Amino acid sequence: MDVLATLDLGPAPVTLRRAVSDDLTAIVGLLAADELGVTRDGISTAGDLLAYQRAFEAIDSDPAHILVVAQAGEDVAGTMQLSFIPGLARRGALRAQIEAVHVHHAYRGRGLGGAMFAWAIGEAKRRGCALVQLTSDKSRPDAHRFYHRLGFIASHEGLKLAL
Amino acid sequence: MDVLATLDLGPAPVTLRRAVSDDLTAIVGLLAADELGVTRDGISTAGDLLAYQRAFEAIDSDPAHILVVAQAGEDVAGTMQLSFIPGLARRGALRAQIEAVHVHHAYRGRGLGGAMFAWAIGEAKRRGCALVQLTSDKSRPDAHRFYHRLGFIASHEGLKLAL
Repeated sequence: MDVLATLDLGPAPVTLRRAVSDDLTAIVGLLAADELGVTRDGISTAGDLLAYQRAFEAIDSDPAHILVVAQAGEDVAGTMQLSFIPGLARRGALRAQIEAVHVHHAYRGRGLGGAMFAWAIGEAKRRGCALVQLTSDKSRPDAHRFYHRLGFIASHEGLKLAL
Repeated sequence: MDVLATLDLGPAPVTLRRAVSDDLTAIVGLLAADELGVTRDGISTAGDLLAYQRAFEAIDSDPAHILVVAQAGEDVAGTMQLSFIPGLARRGALRAQIEAVHVHHAYRGRGLGGAMFAWAIGEAKRRGCALVQLTSDKSRPDAHRFYHRLGFIASHEGLKLAL
């Protein structure tokens, strides 16, 4: 098990670790439990599972990406993806980008999201990133308050074009 | 020369091609000519040049990234970076992400930006992406109108944390 951090959040320890393929069903469950993800994610067919497995392989085989799960006892309590993107702007700054952050509803309000971000920001610093970036759907004001408390600035529009 | 597309924008053809290390000074010039980039980019010291060279190597050596220049005669008329990011969300969707889009002021108003985006969106489709995404500083209303015309939706906040 590729442990990234052990979080002290109360009676039982929570472990941040690199996801393995056996976590896929639990992670997709977290994506599908989301009010926006419910229409976009879920495993209904073998084709769905194959699509998630292929994406997992692409993420897992590239050191530019870390797919993280938070393990609490037998439960996958949260997930996030951290990606490292080189670029020329800002004097050749490496950026850390965070996608697909989800905390299981039974584990909210205990500081798990904050602890996951503290780890991610620390990892971004360790890898020499100049910037951490993410986009967050405008329909999630609670998430924006959370990111603001962490020091994120909503300086940009996040623009998406579905193909 | 790794030609990506030839654009028919008027009297002289413009070539989109993969950037090479000899383009670095011209590309950084485009970044530094920007009203926001002027404080963030430029080559003043050997250390600056080395930082850009290292970033260029990281981009150029990874097939997940394409650093593009638009060549018009002897001029580098524009640049953009296209990155492909795997993820689990949206049934394992691959995303194309566009960063660092700049068009030289002498080449604006001729459709070059639109032609660069048409190529990038086509390349994203060709690689099977479900989504093209980018963030744009909120102080650039003209850019947002441009992206809106291309079909981008400003559905998200673009959040940044400087380290």
